Amino acid sequence: MNLLKTTALAALVASSFALASAAIAQDKTYVIGVSVPTADHGWTGGVDFFAQQAVDRLTKAYPNLSFVLATAPDSTKQAADLEDMIATRNIDGLVILPGDPDAMTASIKKVKDAGKWVTVVDRALSQPGIEDLYVAGDNPGLGTTTADYFKSALPNGGNIVVLRGAPIPIDAQRVDAFMAGIKDTQIKVLDTQFANWNRDDGYKIMQDFLTKYPKIDAVWAQDDDTLVGVLKALKEAGRENEMWAVGGAGMNQIIKMVASGSAQVPVDVSYNPNMVATAIDLTALHFAANAQVDGKLIINSTLITKDNAAQFDYPNTPF
Amino acid sequence: MNLLKTTALAALVASSFALASAAIAQDKTYVIGVSVPTADHGWTGGVDFFAQQAVDRLTKAYPNLSFVLATAPDSTKQAADLEDMIATRNIDGLVILPGDPDAMTASIKKVKDAGKWVTVVDRALSQPGIEDLYVAGDNPGLGTTTADYFKSALPNGGNIVVLRGAPIPIDAQRVDAFMAGIKDTQIKVLDTQFANWNRDDGYKIMQDFLTKYPKIDAVWAQDDDTLVGVLKALKEAGRENEMWAVGGAGMNQIIKMVASGSAQVPVDVSYNPNMVATAIDLTALHFAANAQVDGKLIINSTLITKDNAAQFDYPNTPF
Repeated sequence: MNLLKTTALAALVASSFALASAAIAQDKTYVIGVSVPTADHGWTGGVDFFAQQAVDRLTKAYPNLSFVLATAPDSTKQAADLEDMIATRNIDGLVILPGDPDAMTASIKKVKDAGKWVTVVDRALSQPGIEDLYVAGDNPGLGTTTADYFKSALPNGGNIVVLRGAPIPIDAQRVDAFMAGIKDTQIKVLDTQFANWNRDDGYKIMQDFLTKYPKIDAVWAQDDDTLVGVLKALKEAGRENEMWAVGGAGMNQIIKMVASGSAQVPVDVSYNPNMVATAIDLTALHFAANAQVDGKLIINSTLITKDNAAQFDYPNTPF
Repeated sequence: MNLLKTTALAALVASSFALASAAIAQDKTYVIGVSVPTADHGWTGGVDFFAQQAVDRLTKAYPNLSFVLATAPDSTKQAADLEDMIATRNIDGLVILPGDPDAMTASIKKVKDAGKWVTVVDRALSQPGIEDLYVAGDNPGLGTTTADYFKSALPNGGNIVVLRGAPIPIDAQRVDAFMAGIKDTQIKVLDTQFANWNRDDGYKIMQDFLTKYPKIDAVWAQDDDTLVGVLKALKEAGRENEMWAVGGAGMNQIIKMVASGSAQVPVDVSYNPNMVATAIDLTALHFAANAQVDGKLIINSTLITKDNAAQFDYPNTPF
């Protein structure tokens, strides 16, 4: 029976290739809506750049796909964009990086309830099970990977300060994993403040830390935008040689410092905004190739060192 | 500072689009090796079909990508295929569904050590951390989803028999989750045997179960190939109206039964071989679009019912 089955299968496989190619060529057309935040800091600038780049590439690669790309500075505009995509643009699927996932959950559920495919990027919604596909970086992994570096670089312990992101779940996942990672070490966290993944906040909070603490060995800024602010505060205070600092995401300017062997910024941890392009690509596959892509893609948060920095140096990005 | 930054970013984004498109057009070419088992049962027949289909589609969509596709009936041939891909075909990356993951781990590690990108599909290697990307179905989810169905269909309990797969980790993940799911119910597992995701084994084991047990209310065959053997045994024994049976994977023939409202096969659970195509697509993105795709994609194991069967009915597949 097995032999017969295998032979029959082989014949069927061979004859089906021609049919399948024809089916794809005749496919109906699909419209995919892409909704992302307006570039309000470096990371979202990268999101907008990579989203547009993916849309341009996929429009060429798959003639039966077209895209509606909208950027929104706030949840009111982002919700209106979704309503417009349903009511007048007739989308078949949506890829969304929600600026504020709590505020956007109800609007995204409406898109799902209208029978559309939904891909959510980066920020999880406040209600589980709405989206078909979730694409994000490894947030606990970012904390763990960073903690591993701190342990190896401070084998005898030391004083550190921590600049958190914003008070939403992905920040907590990162910080909890980092704290668990350094738990049984001599590394002492002098202070922690929310810097909102923001350059200005990073600058002000680091100025405050420098005033309060005469001896700091290292800084965990968690984010490369925040880190740029931290580095500015260190430079102005003339204390840039007293401590090293680690951000996160893979901003081009920081990758170049790591690649050059900077003592001040020895490593970075990847959490690149090009995950939005991967999410658009997977969604396109659902329509263009009938691929099964419902599920969860978690992209590694990798330690970026002098040795591997080149592979994280994406050309021409604004981030 | 924020306003200035945003304006500068916007300008940079605009000017970078042209550059980026040019960069992609001029890209160097890449060779991707694809290594899959020879079709020895329905599911691997589907793997071969979907792998070839993805290669055909991607070759057209991305002119700078080419592919080497090899099928292997056993680990000796599959290991030789990998050596050939490195030594004479000069691959830049590999997508592999290892027939026997334990036996193939060392060979795959060699590919990684040679500096190549590695994507592993379905069957996890015996050593973690080798591959860049892992793509698989949700194996615990398959067990949980199936258990949920059994609970809802047998609210007052009943006698069931269980046909397992092969003694490798993904089978244990499925079975453990299923058993945990039915734990506090009146569902009684009369017997369990390994059917190796195989039609003939399913047939013989079900014949044995039918001889031993006069009253069976339902069968969990875990796999649609096994289920086909189970259905044959039931029919020959004239007991096809005494019990219903659930497989797994999404074989076309089973999907059509579910879609038609079969009382004997009321549902299926998705674990489609087209996951190999998704894995090839993601790997292609790494090279064609410099996308960050290292990580883990777990595809949902969804309950397939009469209502949603149409979306799991892939055209022209041999599986």
